[in-house]
Amino acid sequence: MVYNSKTAKQATEITVKKPVKKRPPQRRSAPVRIIPLGGLNEIGKNLYVFECSNDMFIIDCGLAFPDADMLGVDIVIPDFSYLEKNRERFRGIVLTHGHEDHVGALPYLLKNVNVPVFGTRLTIGLIEGKLKEHGILGQCSLNVVQPRQTVSMGCMAVEFIRVNHSIPDSCAMAVHTPAGIIVHTGDFKVDYTPIGNEGVIDLARFGELGNKGVLALLSESTNAERPGYTTSERKVGDSFRNIFATAEERRIIVASFSSNIHRVQQIIDNAAVTGRYVAVSGRSMINVINKAIELGYIKVSSKMIIDIDEVNSHPPEKVVIITTGSQGEPLSALSRMASNDHKQVKINPRDLIIISATPIPGNEKLVGRVVNELMRSGAEVVYEAMYEVHVSGHACQDELKMMLSLTKPRFFMPIHGEYKHLQKHAQLARTMGIPDENIFVLGLGNVLETDGVDTKVTGQVTAGAVLVDGSGVGDVGAVVLRDRKKLAEDGLITIVAAIERETGQLLSGPDIVSRGFVYVRESEELMSQARELMRKVLDSCAAGKTREWGMIKNMMKDKLSELIYVKTKRNPMILPILLMID
Amino acid sequence: MVYNSKTAKQATEITVKKPVKKRPPQRRSAPVRIIPLGGLNEIGKNLYVFECSNDMFIIDCGLAFPDADMLGVDIVIPDFSYLEKNRERFRGIVLTHGHEDHVGALPYLLKNVNVPVFGTRLTIGLIEGKLKEHGILGQCSLNVVQPRQTVSMGCMAVEFIRVNHSIPDSCAMAVHTPAGIIVHTGDFKVDYTPIGNEGVIDLARFGELGNKGVLALLSESTNAERPGYTTSERKVGDSFRNIFATAEERRIIVASFSSNIHRVQQIIDNAAVTGRYVAVSGRSMINVINKAIELGYIKVSSKMIIDIDEVNSHPPEKVVIITTGSQGEPLSALSRMASNDHKQVKINPRDLIIISATPIPGNEKLVGRVVNELMRSGAEVVYEAMYEVHVSGHACQDELKMMLSLTKPRFFMPIHGEYKHLQKHAQLARTMGIPDENIFVLGLGNVLETDGVDTKVTGQVTAGAVLVDGSGVGDVGAVVLRDRKKLAEDGLITIVAAIERETGQLLSGPDIVSRGFVYVRESEELMSQARELMRKVLDSCAAGKTREWGMIKNMMKDKLSELIYVKTKRNPMILPILLMID
Repeated sequence: MVYNSKTAKQATEITVKKPVKKRPPQRRSAPVRIIPLGGLNEIGKNLYVFECSNDMFIIDCGLAFPDADMLGVDIVIPDFSYLEKNRERFRGIVLTHGHEDHVGALPYLLKNVNVPVFGTRLTIGLIEGKLKEHGILGQCSLNVVQPRQTVSMGCMAVEFIRVNHSIPDSCAMAVHTPAGIIVHTGDFKVDYTPIGNEGVIDLARFGELGNKGVLALLSESTNAERPGYTTSERKVGDSFRNIFATAEERRIIVASFSSNIHRVQQIIDNAAVTGRYVAVSGRSMINVINKAIELGYIKVSSKMIIDIDEVNSHPPEKVVIITTGSQGEPLSALSRMASNDHKQVKINPRDLIIISATPIPGNEKLVGRVVNELMRSGAEVVYEAMYEVHVSGHACQDELKMMLSLTKPRFFMPIHGEYKHLQKHAQLARTMGIPDENIFVLGLGNVLETDGVDTKVTGQVTAGAVLVDGSGVGDVGAVVLRDRKKLAEDGLITIVAAIERETGQLLSGPDIVSRGFVYVRESEELMSQARELMRKVLDSCAAGKTREWGMIKNMMKDKLSELIYVKTKRNPMILPILLMID
Repeated sequence: MVYNSKTAKQATEITVKKPVKKRPPQRRSAPVRIIPLGGLNEIGKNLYVFECSNDMFIIDCGLAFPDADMLGVDIVIPDFSYLEKNRERFRGIVLTHGHEDHVGALPYLLKNVNVPVFGTRLTIGLIEGKLKEHGILGQCSLNVVQPRQTVSMGCMAVEFIRVNHSIPDSCAMAVHTPAGIIVHTGDFKVDYTPIGNEGVIDLARFGELGNKGVLALLSESTNAERPGYTTSERKVGDSFRNIFATAEERRIIVASFSSNIHRVQQIIDNAAVTGRYVAVSGRSMINVINKAIELGYIKVSSKMIIDIDEVNSHPPEKVVIITTGSQGEPLSALSRMASNDHKQVKINPRDLIIISATPIPGNEKLVGRVVNELMRSGAEVVYEAMYEVHVSGHACQDELKMMLSLTKPRFFMPIHGEYKHLQKHAQLARTMGIPDENIFVLGLGNVLETDGVDTKVTGQVTAGAVLVDGSGVGDVGAVVLRDRKKLAEDGLITIVAAIERETGQLLSGPDIVSRGFVYVRESEELMSQARELMRKVLDSCAAGKTREWGMIKNMMKDKLSELIYVKTKRNPMILPILLMID
């Protein structure tokens, strides 16, 4: 398979839409199976399998960020074993949009299973960079699809439908199957006044499908806890206009998600109106903005863009800096500015900094820390909800109800969210009149099977989380994490001794080395007590002719643990090592 | 000094209020110094020193909870060295209220410096339990003070003034000094409709002091980012009433802070109205409720209270359980219920659970996890802001402005908060007309000196954080934490070898043991490469007659680091240990 993005070849892959006719409910089709391999009972790593007869495809292939207790883990990806086992009938991958939690695990999958990938232009554009970094761009088949186009996947066909979201070119999918139409919303919101060329979500098409008859709706649940409607992205532009107008002599720095291209466009638009140059800092922000300009998703006069190295050769009131770091990520550009570690940008009292994002749960303290540090340099920082410098990209309760009303599904499965989000969404569906037995709050790996008449969970396949740490994929698991946690909490004490194998006599040591336990000078007395105790254990073993080294090590461990706990109320990891001398 | 809480002896310690006369600004007094030892640029460990001539006292002595990067640390307390150095003029401790961030470090201080402690009845009651646990109750002088009473501290006098807060019996302090009146608000809010016997904050007294002339105001900044007024605690009672009324056949479980006695009273009141028994779970909740009932802060018919062991012998609709765990703390009663680990309470679909708190920044994910687990057992969980089952205990912007308006201070110092909170509060004070040069946003240990005419920062004393881990106080510091972090991220590899001292020949090993690195079976090949490499290093050192063991160990470390990084992109801690055999 060859890389054929934006080539004529894609025409052979994309067929004209052939909607499957609505069947009367009594006619049963071949079973269609939906299997979530990621995205349920968690935020991120979205991956949904659809299969029927000898055909299988997936919607999205995302990553998740590690929880606080996954020490040292970089990212989390779905367990692909089910896909690898079924590779001969794996027809392709369709992508709803270009966010990491929907496409970030793609390189790891494509290294093992080479199938064609379909997505809208921006989504494919962003993936190209990712596959290039992993050195596999040349071998992959990337195919650009327009909204309302349909991609054939054997006996199924996937239709792309425009939605609004916090990245352009986002789509929902209508999966036309022998059993009926299954709508998968991807991430969406309803924005009647979107930015730039972005159209309003294709409500009419959802309605049309609803009238034809939608068998099942899979709808995202991120904001299922929030009443009302999500605010339009344009509102943020209004807030920017007010802030830019009152910034006067000050430099403006705006931190946001790099993928929020509409946000970036609105910053650029306000910079143009107020006669400011725009500089960009942060690797992902530079990458995304360049790609978006190249593909026409950001409109900007090239004269307005300056290099970050030039930023100090213009007066502050003539500059806007767009930067990464809105989540307080420790190595991001904004964090480096805050800690006075950024080469070109030194924060000072003439800076007005806008954090155009809200902290993702878990990041509140990191963001707070960055705000404190920025303020300490005298800058003004705008970050509070009341200034409306951020809106969500996800549908709130009334939009979710709108989607349910338009598609009128017979079966409903809430997706994309923790259990509480899925439950709240299920509750909404119940209030909309969907009977309880037609609502499926599933777990990862559950097999939901439908023949167009009945729908039920019929099995379970392998599903789960694979941890990526450095270049290792899957070599860090429960035992390693448990050890890391123990090491993190109380550190480690190693006891080493050399023993004459024949006699059990101590030839050298015991030496005791601790790390992460207590200050060495505070523990000198304790350590000499520990050495004495270990010597006693070894001597008594030698005298008693004990030669079972495993048992001796356990004895050393138990005795030392006890001493340390009595003296310090701590439980460091204890690692006895005996070297045998022949 | 003897324990004389609630005895006649306190009369000798508490003198009738003798307000210091307002001085015309040109008359300079002996210098009065205010030194924050905790509570600035952080949440928690509040401790403010006041001193003049040969007298010194402190307001509050709180602890803080460790940041995520303080691995293994239990609590954080202020550095007391300044207080210990000045013990001969240390007259006493006054406490604003009984929360941990204001009283939690008291046992650690009183173990070193025995001075009398003054607080309102509930505050002293709660401290008794704490000092008993530490085994020092008998040696401490605890003294109960009423609002509007004044305690003499040598040439200064401290007047207690009632405020509202999320624990009863909270007070602000008016410190009458030779330089003038200094008002310290403690934590406060304005609640016109407080619960039970609690009075409304003593606005009149603040106004009276303002008219006499307040030299300086130290005011809390926790909610300085929030516009408007804080909602009355009574609002939560209204929400409870609605929820209890619709709970019907279900058991109700309410999680809250144990110290929020008004919240507990409102739960009990609603239980009484709906004919439910009340059971309590969670050690701190039981302790506080018992103490509050004993002291009359909670009014409840003893027939209503049942033991948690009896909870299953009553029908669900006749029971309310009050529990700890509203912050998702892993070992709390609610967490144990969620993970099906609670002896008496098994969560089921007939449970209605109210989380009557909002997550403190940093706890969002923990709380979310508990909610997910509770819902998974089929329970309904009410936790969202829209249900108004929680209100803050801290003043919002308009209340902070009210305090500034009433006291009309000449100098202003925002306290209790991170830098961003202090700055926002300073900004509010500026909009209220306090000139910039009269506003002091300080750091810990700064000495703010006033003679009634001029006020300025004149020095710096030792101040900081002391980490408590197990029974160790201060034996965990930067180096230990750095090691723990490294161990947490990539684990550890130990290399041990026995060497003949004379010849440098390898007699045993090198043995390699790893913990928290990767699965052993995944790393077998790498470990045998590592052993080979280490053997080569040792052999070449022996051949080259290198006998500088430190240098050899460094070489082993560098070579192994390099190999591991190339193969895995990870940086585990590497610990080479050589045993010398003579």
